[in-house]
Amino acid sequence: MNDNNVSNHSRREFIASVSSVLGAISFMPQSSSAGIDFKVPVAKMTIKQVIDLILTTIPGAPFKETVDTIKSGDERQEVKGIVTTMFATADVIQRTAALGANFIIAHEPTFYNHRDETTWLDNDQVFQFKNDLLKKNGIVVWRFHDYWHTHRPDGVLMGVLTKLGWQNYYNAENPRMVVLPAMTLADVMKHAKKSLGIRQVRFIGDPKQQCKRIALMPGAAGGRSQIQALQAEKPDVLIVGEVAEWETAEYIRDAQSMKLPMSLIVLGHAESEEPGMEWLVSWLQPKVPDIKVTNVPSHYPFKEA
Amino acid sequence: MNDNNVSNHSRREFIASVSSVLGAISFMPQSSSAGIDFKVPVAKMTIKQVIDLILTTIPGAPFKETVDTIKSGDERQEVKGIVTTMFATADVIQRTAALGANFIIAHEPTFYNHRDETTWLDNDQVFQFKNDLLKKNGIVVWRFHDYWHTHRPDGVLMGVLTKLGWQNYYNAENPRMVVLPAMTLADVMKHAKKSLGIRQVRFIGDPKQQCKRIALMPGAAGGRSQIQALQAEKPDVLIVGEVAEWETAEYIRDAQSMKLPMSLIVLGHAESEEPGMEWLVSWLQPKVPDIKVTNVPSHYPFKEA
Repeated sequence: MNDNNVSNHSRREFIASVSSVLGAISFMPQSSSAGIDFKVPVAKMTIKQVIDLILTTIPGAPFKETVDTIKSGDERQEVKGIVTTMFATADVIQRTAALGANFIIAHEPTFYNHRDETTWLDNDQVFQFKNDLLKKNGIVVWRFHDYWHTHRPDGVLMGVLTKLGWQNYYNAENPRMVVLPAMTLADVMKHAKKSLGIRQVRFIGDPKQQCKRIALMPGAAGGRSQIQALQAEKPDVLIVGEVAEWETAEYIRDAQSMKLPMSLIVLGHAESEEPGMEWLVSWLQPKVPDIKVTNVPSHYPFKEA
Repeated sequence: MNDNNVSNHSRREFIASVSSVLGAISFMPQSSSAGIDFKVPVAKMTIKQVIDLILTTIPGAPFKETVDTIKSGDERQEVKGIVTTMFATADVIQRTAALGANFIIAHEPTFYNHRDETTWLDNDQVFQFKNDLLKKNGIVVWRFHDYWHTHRPDGVLMGVLTKLGWQNYYNAENPRMVVLPAMTLADVMKHAKKSLGIRQVRFIGDPKQQCKRIALMPGAAGGRSQIQALQAEKPDVLIVGEVAEWETAEYIRDAQSMKLPMSLIVLGHAESEEPGMEWLVSWLQPKVPDIKVTNVPSHYPFKEA
């Protein structure tokens, strides 16, 4: 609530945009950045109101069935600051508390399974540690997965495209396909690693293969979705976050055996979608100009040996 | 059927062991390796009879529900040679044909999904290529997954233990746990890479951590199974073939944040279980001494860049 450098213009937009969502707006005194005391209206928002504001932009929201639920904390509390991230890791939670924020918008599960079921974890020391850390710091975690992918453009995809510098190749008719000037598979990997800040990628294919038609599917869409994209698009290369090794990887291996020019690049799940949570900052910040929105990347957890 | 170097002893064992399974045994002429012609009884076996023979050793077999079904070909044909492998890749199929064999025992799916459903692949060019390759060469593929893991000892686990040189640490009471003289995580990785022939592993943890209690779960048991093993055993390190990055990897990452000495090594799915299909050769060959059994490894499909 303490960003004093917000222009009147964006503040007006903010109030206009939240007015349709919020039942009531309260006002609090605030100082200007020049130190001169005068009163400006600042809306206090609850975390729930931020979520509701986001949902007004998502086609078909709210969904009856979704994993995008509150994972911890009470969303009726006033929002003090927002952190976006791929995974609400213990480290991300601690960094959120250090920022004075109390609302984590995480793309992926908090408790190690897609539906964040926790009954099986009740007596688990790692679960308890994380849960205590959240409670102690009064932090609310909300998952923003199904909704963000449903947004048009898909927020994750647009984040990755933007970070790759490929945003001008976005095709609303067929978002997962990017058609670029031809470059070698080696150059695609080099570019992806450099622009996304990835230490190493895994791949199947010939580094010298010419690639022009790229299927870009950040995250782990599942073997069938990934293979159906390969069937439908016949791309030169499929770029994903993660695969099940017995599914997409084996399909590509057989495709290579029949000399199809169809390769696979695996970026790593966290690295492949964090740009979408970084892009969320630029998308969300103008909508809530009085609340500081920060991306705290969770990073790829593995090292290689 | 052409291994002439089989001892009378093992041949007798073979006939005794298959007699309980086979309805009838036929005889064919065969030459000795010294080139002197004389008649010895050699059982002709169908592929189905080999499978039935294997199943006599599996507790509770046959299972009502299992993915261990015939994936291609007619199992009533005479077996000419057996290949064991992790994945019946197009390359493995071609190498099987070159060996004159017609029966592939594969641990993992042939058609890119756990249940080997193929309706969705009917018009798929990669599926058709592989299917044609199997048919053209008259090769039968049978999956040996659920049964091999149910065998006591678990055939995959024992294969990996043996290749790691840790077979004497096998504990029938708690097979997934291996308790070794303490060594650093770095040394565990170095040893696993060298003995299993793996180019690179991925890990989460401190290479200097002392490891003594190792949970060894080759393959991709799934996040919940892997995490439940961590809960129950509290090992120093969990070694797996593959993880879903949003499940086990994140649990370990949070465990590390709370300073638990609990690390993770990911070997790669194919590399982690191929030793179990290699061990199958030494297990199966004495049971079918007249049939050549060969392991054709499918290897890890990825390269790194």
